[in-house]
Amino acid sequence: MKLDSPLANGEVALVGAGPGCASLLTLAAAKLIGDCDTIVYDALVSEEVLDMAPVGVELVEAGKRGGRPSASQDDICKTLIDLAKNGNRVVRLKGGDPFVFGRGGEEVRALAAAGIRFRIIPGITAGIAAPAMAGIPVTDRSVNATLAFLTGHEASEKSRMDWRALVEAFPVLVFYMGARNLSQIAARLLEAGLAEQTPLAIIHAATLNEENTTIATLHEAFTGRISARSPSILIVGDVVAKRINWKD
Amino acid sequence: MKLDSPLANGEVALVGAGPGCASLLTLAAAKLIGDCDTIVYDALVSEEVLDMAPVGVELVEAGKRGGRPSASQDDICKTLIDLAKNGNRVVRLKGGDPFVFGRGGEEVRALAAAGIRFRIIPGITAGIAAPAMAGIPVTDRSVNATLAFLTGHEASEKSRMDWRALVEAFPVLVFYMGARNLSQIAARLLEAGLAEQTPLAIIHAATLNEENTTIATLHEAFTGRISARSPSILIVGDVVAKRINWKD
Repeated sequence: MKLDSPLANGEVALVGAGPGCASLLTLAAAKLIGDCDTIVYDALVSEEVLDMAPVGVELVEAGKRGGRPSASQDDICKTLIDLAKNGNRVVRLKGGDPFVFGRGGEEVRALAAAGIRFRIIPGITAGIAAPAMAGIPVTDRSVNATLAFLTGHEASEKSRMDWRALVEAFPVLVFYMGARNLSQIAARLLEAGLAEQTPLAIIHAATLNEENTTIATLHEAFTGRISARSPSILIVGDVVAKRINWKD
Repeated sequence: MKLDSPLANGEVALVGAGPGCASLLTLAAAKLIGDCDTIVYDALVSEEVLDMAPVGVELVEAGKRGGRPSASQDDICKTLIDLAKNGNRVVRLKGGDPFVFGRGGEEVRALAAAGIRFRIIPGITAGIAAPAMAGIPVTDRSVNATLAFLTGHEASEKSRMDWRALVEAFPVLVFYMGARNLSQIAARLLEAGLAEQTPLAIIHAATLNEENTTIATLHEAFTGRISARSPSILIVGDVVAKRINWKD
């Protein structure tokens, strides 16, 4: 099966929408968005990407936006199944990549259990694209041959992670959804042994017009001297010092 | 600057070619490949992607292919700089994402030092796309809120990594270029405390016609009962058991 072949009636494509900029959609994603009946989209999918949908395609919101409560995961799965059972060609559009902190696995299991035909189209994940936009290589031979992705929620009170083991094994850490827990993440990392001067970058709204990068130290993040707006990607480690700002 | 705006004379775009299948190129990548003077490509860039180049575009190989010696990183940088200085609109095409184990940072620094104008177009990285093709979510709420990417070379004799810390902090590990070191990687992970029955998947040539997935255990990988062909992505951890094979 080709990833970009036309959707059958009753088929669902789980599609990564990438970090925001429409030109970072894949060819397969753009083709399916342009030829489907219904798009079920998450809060992190940009307006720019949704604007690619032709007139007549039904747009169904399945995420939290503007303070309204978000649909539960069960409701989203039920919506996808119902749409498919009614013969719709459905694009399930998720910010970034469907399987990177995106609950794509749960949706796929529900579709499979209901006997719905589906396919998966990976997308550009923000944890890689955001540093690139800031001119920061997420790997650099002189710094790291390993790369860690985490969610900001990991830094919460309930964290069961071994933070000392983490910083020992990984010279570069990328946090998704880290804006709200910025100072707590910094606290954990300092406690785990990272130096106060360890550089970090906060990249907000990467690839969109409002893209904004802040370079700081763990100490500044810990003391609250800097803050971050959601959604942001945080990248911590010496690759931040390798930055070449290519956009200004 | 828009990522997909036309290249200026003497400009270089560092472009991710994705995992292989041409429909997983980004719109920006496809546009620039279709409107440039020269493409400098790596060994991991697929024929399918190179076939997107219009007649008349010069194709320059910069990687190891068919046993011939690979160009040194310095030579590649010099080639890019010379092409740009001669007024070419250059696409530097790298397998996957330019910055994920791709030495993109070194090329960008060389271009910046030479005063060459450049831009960066992220690509779909194989460490995420390959598991997706096999129906394995790289993250699953019930298994992991962290994700580790490593190179297979990390398992060599010279490894300075703390493998115990690694497996403690990360329930899911993704290895790039892990085919040749498969049994050594398994040995390290078993030594570090993972159970012999820990599932792993080997995904070869993901997204291409010859794509092939093997599901096994760490024990089988360690004893050499299974093997892997290059290039392959290895994914180790309980998300492998969450697999839903959607392609058969």
